[in-house]
Amino acid sequence: MTTWLPTLKTATPEEGYNLAVKLARVAVKLTQPDPAVRDRLRPEYAEDSGALIAVSQVVATHFATVAAANDYWRDRT
Amino acid sequence: MTTWLPTLKTATPEEGYNLAVKLARVAVKLTQPDPAVRDRLRPEYAEDSGALIAVSQVVATHFATVAAANDYWRDRT
Amino acid sequence: MTTWLPTLKTATPEEGYNLAVKLARVAVKLTQPDPAVRDRLRPEYAEDSGALIAVSQVVATHFATVAAANDYWRDRT
Amino acid sequence: MTTWLPTLKTATPEEGYNLAVKLARVAVKLTQPDPAVRDRLRPEYAEDSGALIAVSQVVATHFATVAAANDYWRDRT
Amino acid sequence: MTTWLPTLKTATPEEGYNLAVKLARVAVKLTQPDPAVRDRLRPEYAEDSGALIAVSQVVATHFATVAAANDYWRDRT
Amino acid sequence: MTTWLPTLKTATPEEGYNLAVKLARVAVKLTQPDPAVRDRLRPEYAEDSGALIAVSQVVATHFATVAAANDYWRDRT
Repeated sequence: MTTWLPTLKTATPEEGYNLAVKLARVAVKLTQPDPAVRDRLRPEYAEDSGALIAVSQVVATHFATVAAANDYWRDRT
Repeated sequence: MTTWLPTLKTATPEEGYNLAVKLARVAVKLTQPDPAVRDRLRPEYAEDSGALIAVSQVVATHFATVAAANDYWRDRT
Repeated sequence: MTTWLPTLKTATPEEGYNLAVKLARVAVKLTQPDPAVRDRLRPEYAEDSGALIAVSQVVATHFATVAAANDYWRDRT
Repeated sequence: MTTWLPTLKTATPEEGYNLAVKLARVAVKLTQPDPAVRDRLRPEYAEDSGALIAVSQVVATHFATVAAANDYWRDRT
Repeated sequence: MTTWLPTLKTATPEEGYNLAVKLARVAVKLTQPDPAVRDRLRPEYAEDSGALIAVSQVVATHFATVAAANDYWRDRT
Repeated sequence: MTTWLPTLKTATPEEGYNLAVKLARVAVKLTQPDPAVRDRLRPEYAEDSGALIAVSQVVATHFATVAAANDYWRDRT
């Protein structure tokens, strides 16, 4: 059985950031499972600065978790 | 006596994410215990991008807790 | 002298969650001490999905604290 | 010279919660130093459920800090 | 070369709180570099309880960081 | 292959703060990839105090992560 989230480990900080973006989006999909509705909402919030900043806030919260899970990628530096 | 939250431990990150979604929903139920009212509100916020992003923010906050409780599922990687 | 918050320790995660809900409510009471006003506001926000999600966010923040205080109830698992 | 914040240590969790409430209020005072304006705003937000929940969110964030500073008052339990 | 943020260390919790206020303000300056615009906005948000609470939330988030950086000023108590 | 985020390590707290600002902006770019739309939105939110405070909140969340990753730049003090 595949999973969309096998691990919080990523090779690089950038991949960790991308994972945070994914983590932010999945909750939206679980709350609004209909892709047609999500497609309709997308242009709306993508042109609303308040919504864009709110998305960025969710990403920031998840990035904190992913970064901690990777011990801030300290081994790489 | 059964409980809806016996533990914060989950086998996988994905199960931990699902638990975070559940943790986010329970507070809504405790604040609005009437299922009829919640059913009436659901289509409203499920088509409101601001509400969907706010739900995602709550999930992110709970996911941080669940991930820490599971030591970020480091044993699995 | 009794206190409404003798400890952050709880026997189970579910009790910890309930404590988080209580912690969220007390700040509202301290800011609006008049029970008549709070009773008037309750039906208003209990039927407002934005307010319900915001309450859930406060609970999530307190639950993170309570869970850490209990070392995530790791001894029980 | 006296200070309004000599320490983050408190004897009990309840005192820690009260300190969190204080920490939330001081930022408002620093941003709006005029007591007359603050007095005018108070009844407004004290009857606005969204504002009350937002205040509770700020308290929750500060309570996390105060609780950590006191090692969650673990010595008392 | 001088810097506005040489260190997160402060002698006292109160100084740490003031640093958190400063950290909250700098992001606004970086996003809106024009001082004339900021001066125009100030009376607006300084009389808006929602904005004042939101500022207090940002300060709370920064204060958590500054307090951790100072090990909660435990050496002083 | 270059990356916009090779590391969370910075030499100074101020550079760490600037990295937090960058981390906040990238999520907006990923959600709204069209630079023309972003340019259109910028003057709008740069003159909206609520949006400026919300941006500052995102920066605060990322700064917490960057500061932790740098062990609060304790070696420098």
